[in-house]
Amino acid sequence: MPAPIDFYFDFSSPYGYLASRKIDAIAAAHGRKVAWRPILLGVAFKATGGAPLPSIPIKGVYAMRDFLRSARFHGIPYRQPTTFPVSTISAVRAFYWLQDRDPAKAVELAKALYNAYFTEDLDISKPENVAQVAARFGVNAQELAAALGDAAVKERTKTEVDAAVTKGVFGSPYIVVDGEPFWGMDRLEQVERWLAKGPF
Amino acid sequence: MPAPIDFYFDFSSPYGYLASRKIDAIAAAHGRKVAWRPILLGVAFKATGGAPLPSIPIKGVYAMRDFLRSARFHGIPYRQPTTFPVSTISAVRAFYWLQDRDPAKAVELAKALYNAYFTEDLDISKPENVAQVAARFGVNAQELAAALGDAAVKERTKTEVDAAVTKGVFGSPYIVVDGEPFWGMDRLEQVERWLAKGPF
Repeated sequence: MPAPIDFYFDFSSPYGYLASRKIDAIAAAHGRKVAWRPILLGVAFKATGGAPLPSIPIKGVYAMRDFLRSARFHGIPYRQPTTFPVSTISAVRAFYWLQDRDPAKAVELAKALYNAYFTEDLDISKPENVAQVAARFGVNAQELAAALGDAAVKERTKTEVDAAVTKGVFGSPYIVVDGEPFWGMDRLEQVERWLAKGPF
Repeated sequence: MPAPIDFYFDFSSPYGYLASRKIDAIAAAHGRKVAWRPILLGVAFKATGGAPLPSIPIKGVYAMRDFLRSARFHGIPYRQPTTFPVSTISAVRAFYWLQDRDPAKAVELAKALYNAYFTEDLDISKPENVAQVAARFGVNAQELAAALGDAAVKERTKTEVDAAVTKGVFGSPYIVVDGEPFWGMDRLEQVERWLAKGPF
């Protein structure tokens, strides 16, 4: 079986969320698995001088409109979170902690966190909300809460995020197929072509 | 007949160029005309704090790769210009000067300038190259050269560019259909849907 697709994303990224609803099906259609890799866009922005879209004059106003319209275009449920963007460090730590215990469940958690933030308007910057989402499918909330403050989990998270930025990940979603990078929800079509027919 | 589509673009913008190869056909398929509106992205960047893609660390390297790959994906000829990006003030002035004399020819000039820059590697920042391209279809090169230094032409250009920025144009291409803004080559699919079925 060919190598999995790397799917880098920030839990606070609308386009990352939209892509998260499609990436598994796209990969599966071509016999691929997806390696879900949450990152912290704020760390990447330090390398590129980037800033969260809503903070950018004029472009930010457009972006807020485009999030909603793009969700409708793709037929994906979307509710603009009241607090946006948010820090997602707890969400990312929870993911990597769980990945070391149950990789499949970690992916389930990633999807559940995205859905909670972008369809239920649950503020996933709060550790207790991350724990609440995880508890929905049997993760021990107390264990998770403890893990979020654990030095090893913090270090693991930092290592993963730094490795992504070192590899050139600067946005969300950022997808790598056999070494070829694709940035943005808008590049899913090119990802599909690449998977189907190889380099173009 | 419904109102024309506003097609804002910068002559130095690869994604603007790619969109320029498709926008007329998309509009025509839905009984629309296109109002070609060259702008100066540098002026828009002053309002948003934006910067040319190649100047952005990491993201710039990705963008150079994406220009070429996206051109191949869409089957559009593309040659990365040696000098990039360039000032396009002469190109924009030539366009608006010609528009006041022969609107159809001005659109022809816009397409020819884009093709010259992105397929022939002709540096369209040079007034003599702009004149050379215009001369290919019968524009008097001497008249054009004189117009580029004309105060009224400069003022007309400034007015057009400022009006675009005031309307919220912050990138290239930037397409407005019946008041709805779409930013980026990536949004042509949404433009098509909007034209075909109205608001979504």
